[in-house]
Amino acid sequence: MSSGINHQVGIKVSPEEIFKYLTETDKLAQWWTTDTLGSGAKVGDTLEFRFYGCCQQFNVKELKPGKRVAWISPKGQGAEEWEETEVTFDLSTHEKQTFIQVRHTGWRESTELQGHCSMRWAVFLLSLKDVLERGKRRPYPYDLEVHWR
Amino acid sequence: MSSGINHQVGIKVSPEEIFKYLTETDKLAQWWTTDTLGSGAKVGDTLEFRFYGCCQQFNVKELKPGKRVAWISPKGQGAEEWEETEVTFDLSTHEKQTFIQVRHTGWRESTELQGHCSMRWAVFLLSLKDVLERGKRRPYPYDLEVHWR
Repeated sequence: MSSGINHQVGIKVSPEEIFKYLTETDKLAQWWTTDTLGSGAKVGDTLEFRFYGCCQQFNVKELKPGKRVAWISPKGQGAEEWEETEVTFDLSTHEKQTFIQVRHTGWRESTELQGHCSMRWAVFLLSLKDVLERGKRRPYPYDLEVHWR
Repeated sequence: MSSGINHQVGIKVSPEEIFKYLTETDKLAQWWTTDTLGSGAKVGDTLEFRFYGCCQQFNVKELKPGKRVAWISPKGQGAEEWEETEVTFDLSTHEKQTFIQVRHTGWRESTELQGHCSMRWAVFLLSLKDVLERGKRRPYPYDLEVHWR
């Protein structure tokens, strides 16, 4: 099994502020995809993120306010390679910034699609940083293009 | 062992053009760091990339024009976590673009520094795409900031 994607970025806001952008549907829509449905507010809730007419679901697995968010992608929806993968967001503070460590694990293989998703996670984390630090929104479909076939 | 970093990006130029930006010192300096020394033109050559006064060396391990570049980081220099790690760039064409698959493997652990480097690789690949498609240079120290403690 591949160990998956591991990205870290520093953002100059509090962990509590970032936590809102990982759990509130309207705020997720400001940095990941404008077409975000469902709820991420409670463990067991389901979020749905739509891109290019397709969708990606996650069930909320764990929530520790200001500390950690974990989602798991159920079987039978969205990209097959994402099935049963897990996304975790861990927040830690250091001086005047908060580090967000994002891991997307459980990939069966280290594929080309994984490489594409890794680049897109990076682009969306820069988008999250921009919305929080500068109020600049770049969610899909306004995201930086990295191209896929 | 961690499987490491895996990113893919599509760039609308030929693989031969991208290959130049992976092997010629003055062209590497246009997208990664302005302070690039040494040579990447022949197997066995050594490249040195400087950031924040520190440096990172790579020995060229494999070169297949228009197809593949592989570097290996020697022991005893630069970031300890990068020692003996390998970076590969694989090029493939699809319609009017070239996909570049970058893997940075051999990490002993999936650490916070790895997460930071993963974000920075993504930023520099966007920089490579920009220089090739739009002539826009954003190497270090002009790169997008992702922050490190």
